[in-house]
Amino acid sequence: MRILVLGGDGYLGWPTALHLSQAGHDVGVLDNLVRRHYDDEMGVDSLVPIRQLQRRVATWKEVSGYSIAPFIGDLNSYEFIAETLKAFEPDTIVHFAEQRSAPYSMIDRQHAVYTQVNNVVGPLNLLYAIAALNPAIHLVKLGTMGEYGAPNIDIEEGFIEITHKGRTDVLPFPKQPNSFYHLSKVHDSHNIMFACRIWGLRSTDLNQGIVYGQQTRETSMHPDLLTRFDYDGVFGTVLNRFAVQAAVGYPLTVYGKGGQTRAMLDIRDTLACVELACLNPPAAGEYRVFNQFTESLAVRQLAQWVARVCPIDVGRESIPNPPAENAEHGLSLVELAAPHKGRVNFEAIRPTVSWHTTRSEVSVTGGAVGE
Amino acid sequence: MRILVLGGDGYLGWPTALHLSQAGHDVGVLDNLVRRHYDDEMGVDSLVPIRQLQRRVATWKEVSGYSIAPFIGDLNSYEFIAETLKAFEPDTIVHFAEQRSAPYSMIDRQHAVYTQVNNVVGPLNLLYAIAALNPAIHLVKLGTMGEYGAPNIDIEEGFIEITHKGRTDVLPFPKQPNSFYHLSKVHDSHNIMFACRIWGLRSTDLNQGIVYGQQTRETSMHPDLLTRFDYDGVFGTVLNRFAVQAAVGYPLTVYGKGGQTRAMLDIRDTLACVELACLNPPAAGEYRVFNQFTESLAVRQLAQWVARVCPIDVGRESIPNPPAENAEHGLSLVELAAPHKGRVNFEAIRPTVSWHTTRSEVSVTGGAVGE
Repeated sequence: MRILVLGGDGYLGWPTALHLSQAGHDVGVLDNLVRRHYDDEMGVDSLVPIRQLQRRVATWKEVSGYSIAPFIGDLNSYEFIAETLKAFEPDTIVHFAEQRSAPYSMIDRQHAVYTQVNNVVGPLNLLYAIAALNPAIHLVKLGTMGEYGAPNIDIEEGFIEITHKGRTDVLPFPKQPNSFYHLSKVHDSHNIMFACRIWGLRSTDLNQGIVYGQQTRETSMHPDLLTRFDYDGVFGTVLNRFAVQAAVGYPLTVYGKGGQTRAMLDIRDTLACVELACLNPPAAGEYRVFNQFTESLAVRQLAQWVARVCPIDVGRESIPNPPAENAEHGLSLVELAAPHKGRVNFEAIRPTVSWHTTRSEVSVTGGAVGE
Repeated sequence: MRILVLGGDGYLGWPTALHLSQAGHDVGVLDNLVRRHYDDEMGVDSLVPIRQLQRRVATWKEVSGYSIAPFIGDLNSYEFIAETLKAFEPDTIVHFAEQRSAPYSMIDRQHAVYTQVNNVVGPLNLLYAIAALNPAIHLVKLGTMGEYGAPNIDIEEGFIEITHKGRTDVLPFPKQPNSFYHLSKVHDSHNIMFACRIWGLRSTDLNQGIVYGQQTRETSMHPDLLTRFDYDGVFGTVLNRFAVQAAVGYPLTVYGKGGQTRAMLDIRDTLACVELACLNPPAAGEYRVFNQFTESLAVRQLAQWVARVCPIDVGRESIPNPPAENAEHGLSLVELAAPHKGRVNFEAIRPTVSWHTTRSEVSVTGGAVGE
């Protein structure tokens, strides 16, 4: 199978590319490398040093014998996408190439606009390129459980049967996204669903939980192959952030009351899910949605995971012990973070983005803080 | 009340501005005049000649004694919006300023991208400006019944109570938009809903049916005050287009089988609805939705409206007579169009945009053609 991984230089895109390559697929990675630019903009860095894409690909070739073709450029350029599809001729495209931080999207107006334009226009270009060049391509798009928000009914996979006033239909599950980033993903999902309907494209939308972890079988094969590990207040996902805070003895940052539930997923499960989707494409015209997570926990419980293996202050309230097996995740992450203590930028850990005030002095009112 | 009408140079924005001014409100109009540019791009024109905005405003002052303040510029510029809000200090903003043609959005990739960026970024800038400068401003946003698509359950006003597996919640009504334009409106609605929730803004979303008609009490007061009347395949709304086709003896263009139902609204009812919304603002933090239409008819029935008053070929199938009162709408429109026969561009009437093929040669599959 020929698989092109968009955003293949990122936290999940790179390990996914390695995993698919190791499994024997012909893999290409496309990336505009802007994730590295965000680090420079925010003055933060991956806890674990990462190599440039060219070096990563070269080392992978040495270690595994497999080639990964790099395509450096931006989805906002239709010409670049079209040329890449013509050159690589993928039959599957895995799409990670979006600005993926909710706090980043909430920094101010410019970051909100950037996030929505970037996350809508790139995929629109992609849909047009697929339709024009090879409508049989299977688009595996990475979404997020955060698209659904927190409704008071069970969340289904993309669609829900509704009976109302004597009639019944299966309709898109209502979305209540809670940041301009999450909104951009909802916009994107709607566009893809429409393209499948009118152009007969095929797409799998993977609404994944918040991913934690950093090591996969392939990235562990050589230091040059490691993927990034973010612990800052803007790009660090919650469990990774807690692990670093615990490793350096920094109090765990629990937003609000910590009662918000978060669907969680181990990075290795992400890779397995993506490969499974690639191997089982939907029919032409079909847009299908899978929700993917292995645990659903309150943020305060996550803090407790970490505190079990690395005693640290998580606040004054008594909280029930989480299931014992989960503590292992916390352990491996804290162990991972410990040797890199010297690289920790304490300033970067603090949450700096508010949902309710912006740099243009928006008035403060009610509402939940999202992850 | 100080009311700023965004898109106040357009088909509905201009008559709305006049209506609100005549009612005694202090009215400003903001427009980037791009609707006139679309005419030049497509090689079409309003059937009824319209004046430039400056002349319109001057004549209105002469005829009514009321001043309307014009602000020429683009919502894509935050600085322009902020400066306008500071200068005019509106307490209500009526927002018509979006690219509003579904066929235009489906011309090709560039028009799809333009429509979504324009219709998402402008309102995002607006939300940030309102939040920064005066969160008490009431935003009346013009939406469309087309956001809902055609579900097999009754369409409610923006929200629906869903009971599922023993629990109940009131959630956003699922949307199934059927063009990149309609998708842009759904994106926009989601963004506004979110801004109300987190920043305490207040907004009324008016999901209106397809508007027909051209004359209002105020526009009829002087030829300089007339609003545009579009009959082309891209910007002409369906009943207006049929009226012109009937007036010039051109067969009525019924897309597909003509069975699609369309919610319709007289232009004078649009104005009344908007004023009613302005006079009754929601509470801070509230996002409310009203669906507004007076008839819901199949496109083939619409053709029959027009054919009743102006015999013309509408196809071979026999169709039931529509209610007699509706035929009056068709009559007044055909009468309106008749004196302008000489201005009709027959080439422009033909539908030229396909949902299923694009200029980049997208493959053809199933799906409905939208209005």
